[in-house]
Amino acid sequence: MKIISLTDVEKNEVNMEGAAGAWKQLPLGCADGTPVYSYRVFTVEPGGHTPYHQHPYEHMNYVIEGTGVLVNVEGEEQPLKAGDFALVDPSEKHQYRNKGDQPFKMICGVPKEFE
Amino acid sequence: MKIISLTDVEKNEVNMEGAAGAWKQLPLGCADGTPVYSYRVFTVEPGGHTPYHQHPYEHMNYVIEGTGVLVNVEGEEQPLKAGDFALVDPSEKHQYRNKGDQPFKMICGVPKEFE
Repeated sequence: MKIISLTDVEKNEVNMEGAAGAWKQLPLGCADGTPVYSYRVFTVEPGGHTPYHQHPYEHMNYVIEGTGVLVNVEGEEQPLKAGDFALVDPSEKHQYRNKGDQPFKMICGVPKEFE
Repeated sequence: MKIISLTDVEKNEVNMEGAAGAWKQLPLGCADGTPVYSYRVFTVEPGGHTPYHQHPYEHMNYVIEGTGVLVNVEGEEQPLKAGDFALVDPSEKHQYRNKGDQPFKMICGVPKEFE
């Protein structure tokens, strides 16, 4: 059993090409012995974004705070707000953008093999 | 891609033996095509609890709101509050209890085979 507050989890800037103003935390990952899945948390600053990319595994999101958009494979912006859940399918191109004036914070779950 | 607000997800009372004042929602599950994991949300009313039990798969929690306790295999109560993450290992006996005066709401992720 592990219990940790998000405020106690190390936060690192995302340095991937195509990312701007995005920060990552890993409250529950394979280093904790998670058998199947990992929970990361991304915080995107106002005006920031994650890369517009794709990969062979899914994302499972829960929006903790703020508002943003999830850009889909057609480049269309789907609104996201606190309390929303989202599933991005494997190999589906996507990007998270903060178009508001407050931080946008979300859980982003992935299979443990990828984090 | 699927996006859904938690407020739009059907909520059903947990009827398992040993549960009281506990409600379940399934915002992202295998019926949505989740490849690996499912996200349920449990809301436990003040004074309510989930069963004190164990099973061969883990729980991965994020506390959305309220305060509660996570009872471990020794029967000890570990406090949980909004913003906390918790991992309950496979086969680890556990129970969630709401000892506060507001609803206690948390994500409870499990492998998709179990939801």
